[in-house]
Amino acid sequence: MPEIREDLITGGMVIIATERSKRPQDFTHVNEPPKGSKSCVFCYGKEAATPPEIIAIRPGGGLPDCPGWTVRAFPNKFPAVTAAGNPDYINVGGRKAVKAVGAHEVIVDTPEHNQTFGQLPDTCAEQAMEVIASRYRHLSGDLRFQYIQVFKNSGAAAGASLEHSHWQIITVPLVPETVAREIKGTESFWEANGECAYCRMIAEEKNNGSRVIEQTKEFVVLTPFASRFPYETWIIPTKHEPFFEKTGIEEIKALGRTVRRSIRRLERTLCRPPYNLTIHACPAGIKSRSYHWHIKIMPRLSTIAGFEMGSGIHINPVSPEMAAGLLRETQPDIQDDSGMNGVEAND
Amino acid sequence: MPEIREDLITGGMVIIATERSKRPQDFTHVNEPPKGSKSCVFCYGKEAATPPEIIAIRPGGGLPDCPGWTVRAFPNKFPAVTAAGNPDYINVGGRKAVKAVGAHEVIVDTPEHNQTFGQLPDTCAEQAMEVIASRYRHLSGDLRFQYIQVFKNSGAAAGASLEHSHWQIITVPLVPETVAREIKGTESFWEANGECAYCRMIAEEKNNGSRVIEQTKEFVVLTPFASRFPYETWIIPTKHEPFFEKTGIEEIKALGRTVRRSIRRLERTLCRPPYNLTIHACPAGIKSRSYHWHIKIMPRLSTIAGFEMGSGIHINPVSPEMAAGLLRETQPDIQDDSGMNGVEAND
Repeated sequence: MPEIREDLITGGMVIIATERSKRPQDFTHVNEPPKGSKSCVFCYGKEAATPPEIIAIRPGGGLPDCPGWTVRAFPNKFPAVTAAGNPDYINVGGRKAVKAVGAHEVIVDTPEHNQTFGQLPDTCAEQAMEVIASRYRHLSGDLRFQYIQVFKNSGAAAGASLEHSHWQIITVPLVPETVAREIKGTESFWEANGECAYCRMIAEEKNNGSRVIEQTKEFVVLTPFASRFPYETWIIPTKHEPFFEKTGIEEIKALGRTVRRSIRRLERTLCRPPYNLTIHACPAGIKSRSYHWHIKIMPRLSTIAGFEMGSGIHINPVSPEMAAGLLRETQPDIQDDSGMNGVEAND
Repeated sequence: MPEIREDLITGGMVIIATERSKRPQDFTHVNEPPKGSKSCVFCYGKEAATPPEIIAIRPGGGLPDCPGWTVRAFPNKFPAVTAAGNPDYINVGGRKAVKAVGAHEVIVDTPEHNQTFGQLPDTCAEQAMEVIASRYRHLSGDLRFQYIQVFKNSGAAAGASLEHSHWQIITVPLVPETVAREIKGTESFWEANGECAYCRMIAEEKNNGSRVIEQTKEFVVLTPFASRFPYETWIIPTKHEPFFEKTGIEEIKALGRTVRRSIRRLERTLCRPPYNLTIHACPAGIKSRSYHWHIKIMPRLSTIAGFEMGSGIHINPVSPEMAAGLLRETQPDIQDDSGMNGVEAND
């Protein structure tokens, strides 16, 4: 019997279509044949093909924009926003718009062309997250930027135009309507219940157990009750904190390791699915104590089509309880691809 | 200079990234090689492979579930919702859900496997829209169904699993949060301005002209100011009417013709792009006089990726003014595919 579930905070709905239930091997996503490293500008030795680096980690030392790095951040060569000026109003065809002033940065998390984030050694995953957090902290100090979106697209079906593993950050000079609404949801919950909606969710999910994938001192990893995507995975810090930029160094390192394991579980369970990862945090433009930053990982195994676009309701053929069960059983080993649930690995 | 535009009603934001501006031939969508009609269950002679038809138009008469039809509606063989029972609350893993009770129907709008909706003769487009409207009216009488979503997915990248041209209807027993919010937006606009937001939009767009593609007595076709997708096209009735089911027969016929022309312009300008089409109307569950039903057509030329999913902001590399200019110049002829802006047709 298919059922409609509502998100506790946004009221967003999903149909969990259990009649259409799918096992991991029933998802026929195509891993494009790798283009290879020849024309890749994110590989060692191609540093001159990107804008000059902003920050990099070079364990053995060395010059900027040369090989030797493990993580490297630089401005996007084809930015969606413009770095210069102020976010003034402009008149366009009789209507008001705002100059899209912001930063658009790229963080490459491995020099190896075919390495996935899930395959990184723990230290490299930690370093990547440290660089991301450092850029986030820096950008949160620019008063023009009201909202900072950190995200990772992996695979062509998830919108990654380059296959070499990387993250992106885009800042915008306004708080997006959807973000403001989610924060309003947590404020309403706080007013009604005297506590944080995400803290409550963590307590309930730990108690119930059926949707929990992993628990550490710092994080709970789970499949949300109203999962919009098959195998959607959330990483929520156990400590209440609205602002990503206030997260301490040890938690950031632990986050790198937890994200690495969570991605690896998806890679091994679903044979390297295309996915999007997003960081959700309270923006400088709102400053609400009720929010609780977290990460969402969304495998892209089905297409967002007309029904989803019109109604806002996603149809998910995999229950989060079944997804959590499978992901919980999958060991996040770096090397061993042989046990990918019987699905042949692509590498 | 990229700019941020806000939707008048929802407050939803887009970045119009003019620096990334693309001409039609720069979009490299792949039209999958057609699977052909052999295994197609929507073609003539395969009627027994679908559930029994609900309604069909047979200009020459004939028996149900046999050839001779021009439009044919039947229940989806793999429904996302369940037809039987009531939308009761159920307990799932410690949380509340609702049984997804509803109808899931398919309307096949041509017996010809390779014919697109844009290529239909006017009478066939009219008949298809009459059948859709008839099903909508019928379903709106079932009190269990609080919201009816009519949509069309065309092309694999737009989520169409079958290539033979068709529409779908899914009803749900709750008003989706995004729909309720849009209606709330029109109510707020009415309260603040004493008029319908869409009626105002029509007046302003006609006056400005830069985003208008076509005007008839019954409809205005335009690219919205805050277009989320390249070449996004809206069809808005000139007469204020919240409820699709109250639209008269002559307007429904005119809608069929207008949708046909609008799709044909996209097919010829963009070489048959994948697209989603959705009907937006005030649901029985709300009954607001402030809403104004309309249609959205969204070509799927770029991927909804991490930035869009996290922030809700879409990045659109084509300004709606440029898109409207090109679509306005494109004649919606049925036969002639030679002038597809220099792009070779796939058929």
